Amino acid sequence: MAKKREASVGVVEPQKFTFARPPHELVLESGQKIGPITVTYETYGTLNAAKDNAILVVHALSGDAHAAGFHKKTDKKSGWWDIMIGPGKPVDTTRFFVVCSNVLGGCKGTTGPSSINPKTGKPYGISFPVVTIGDMVTVQKHLLDHLGIQKLHSVIGGSMGGMQVLEWVLQYPDISKSAIVVASCAALSAQAIAFDAVGRNAITADPAWKNGKYAGNARIPGLAVARMLGHITYLSEAGMRERFGRTLYENDDYSYEFKDEFAIETYLAYKGSTFLDRFDANSYLYVTKAMDYYDVAAQYGKGSLEKAFSRVKAKMMFVSFTSDWLFPPRQSIEMVHAFQKSGKDAAYLNIDTAYGHDSFLLPCDRLFRGIRNFLLHVKDSGEA
Amino acid sequence: MAKKREASVGVVEPQKFTFARPPHELVLESGQKIGPITVTYETYGTLNAAKDNAILVVHALSGDAHAAGFHKKTDKKSGWWDIMIGPGKPVDTTRFFVVCSNVLGGCKGTTGPSSINPKTGKPYGISFPVVTIGDMVTVQKHLLDHLGIQKLHSVIGGSMGGMQVLEWVLQYPDISKSAIVVASCAALSAQAIAFDAVGRNAITADPAWKNGKYAGNARIPGLAVARMLGHITYLSEAGMRERFGRTLYENDDYSYEFKDEFAIETYLAYKGSTFLDRFDANSYLYVTKAMDYYDVAAQYGKGSLEKAFSRVKAKMMFVSFTSDWLFPPRQSIEMVHAFQKSGKDAAYLNIDTAYGHDSFLLPCDRLFRGIRNFLLHVKDSGEA
Repeated sequence: MAKKREASVGVVEPQKFTFARPPHELVLESGQKIGPITVTYETYGTLNAAKDNAILVVHALSGDAHAAGFHKKTDKKSGWWDIMIGPGKPVDTTRFFVVCSNVLGGCKGTTGPSSINPKTGKPYGISFPVVTIGDMVTVQKHLLDHLGIQKLHSVIGGSMGGMQVLEWVLQYPDISKSAIVVASCAALSAQAIAFDAVGRNAITADPAWKNGKYAGNARIPGLAVARMLGHITYLSEAGMRERFGRTLYENDDYSYEFKDEFAIETYLAYKGSTFLDRFDANSYLYVTKAMDYYDVAAQYGKGSLEKAFSRVKAKMMFVSFTSDWLFPPRQSIEMVHAFQKSGKDAAYLNIDTAYGHDSFLLPCDRLFRGIRNFLLHVKDSGEA
Repeated sequence: MAKKREASVGVVEPQKFTFARPPHELVLESGQKIGPITVTYETYGTLNAAKDNAILVVHALSGDAHAAGFHKKTDKKSGWWDIMIGPGKPVDTTRFFVVCSNVLGGCKGTTGPSSINPKTGKPYGISFPVVTIGDMVTVQKHLLDHLGIQKLHSVIGGSMGGMQVLEWVLQYPDISKSAIVVASCAALSAQAIAFDAVGRNAITADPAWKNGKYAGNARIPGLAVARMLGHITYLSEAGMRERFGRTLYENDDYSYEFKDEFAIETYLAYKGSTFLDRFDANSYLYVTKAMDYYDVAAQYGKGSLEKAFSRVKAKMMFVSFTSDWLFPPRQSIEMVHAFQKSGKDAAYLNIDTAYGHDSFLLPCDRLFRGIRNFLLHVKDSGEA
């Protein structure tokens, strides 16, 4: 039995791996080439001798390689999925070797629009090629090759991470024994694309964006607006009502001035403002575009999800949250049905929460238990 | 019986009325004063000798006084509720004298932030006082006094118009025999306030806004972003899926460029861009703020909607639309229940549509029939 102590993986050091050096650039789905590509990643736990205990964790829109532990002993904030990954935790680092890398096009150490284009000596900006979920996964495959990992026990991710999980079992059906898709979908809805489009417009309409050629440390207020909007879609209406309601932040009565005064306004303004310190406006464009483009049925099934999933060999698990309206349960159910129609079974958890899309990042016993048991079952059954 | 011919009120001429000339400025809910106030309004039909056949129509966020008919014979677009108002239409101008005015703080002919401040000779900008739904209604009361109308057959409005309707029967319980509140609420939810806050931030974060001191003809791209976001909330997820889905606007395949390519993107960009030609960015701030502030229970019932509604004498009708998630049916049902608890009955229609909040502006037989019959019933019963 795994030790049940809920503990941290401790202090971890991000690592870097560079490939696709010219003239061996990576050819992207668009046909464009990019190279060199540096990938920033972290690992937790130990790769066993058989090299078959690796789990790849993939991150969402604003995530990064820092999924668990701390960078310094004095860090107050742990990695973005520290509640999930660690010794005795659902993704148990006493059993599994966990890898997490920042996505291609991101801004947390992996090559993206804020990286220096070696041909010009300046940041790529929007001369960086448009990348896809498929390209992100291709880069992760190169990283696994570099680490000597030919088989995965599982690949796990939520939201945009879930899209990468799907792409993994579609693009490389023989590599991962299992896969867990949390709060995600096989293709964004029109409404989700619409929210992304408004976010991108908030950035590109901002003169500070300068057609993507802003200085590296420039604050782009339009990015804060995009993030504020994003946060509305990550919460649920009921959850927001319960947590904020119509409460005023500090005054007893209206100010009759144009300032943030409802608690929800203050919350969103704070989330928007702090996002400017930790995310790059151009990366926001690229990563949301990659999500908008992703379409499993169109790319792998000539319009049919069932047909697309027929190539999948991994044991699948889907998780949705009842109050998630950005990636609604309907979309997970569609995927489960498509798997069933293609003659395969898929585990499915629809978890009743009030926290909307954000639920996948929050403590949740059903989620923890579901992922822990699923991973152990794959392990024990020895299925390939 | 009313003549059934579905016809237009024809060419109408907006009219103006000015009051609150200094030193007799209007005192607003905030305690601030404003004057003079010019109101732009239109009327359709004929006021009868008893002056008891008037219906006040009140408009939503981006509406204006032009509710029906045309300004010129060559106009391709009719007034914003032309499907509702006209000879033989639900608000039948062969029976009723209809009045519609632009709200205080608006930008369609009634005094607002884009009006010239007589004290400075320059536009008010954000030195214009913050106005409330109550202030808008007070100004409408002055207009009715000017027109010699002491009693209303009904007051009707959707969305922010519905808030004004509520305010009418609360602030002036003896004036209107009946009232119809369409797709509205007694107080915005935290989520609706959040969307308004993001829209306002999109404007105020835009350097072109210049702290509200932009030139009158300046285009404020942030306003387009706010409008794009607004449009997402006016449609439903299912309706958007059905109408736009993931269809590309003109290409067969992805462009791998940052341009609008999904049909929903093109639609929103168009709606955003055209809004710049017809609406004022500062007015957007004022009108959304007025909506955020409106809170029937807090203002009239010490926190209780039931208590607030106990003062209402008008015969009430509420209408909601099943797919409206900005002003969800839940909020109409709360109002109906509060009326029932306060010992009064209220008619309620929850109409099954896929068009979201926008449904109140679209052709809908159930809506038409409901409003027509309600208005005739009030007429025939002779209730006060």
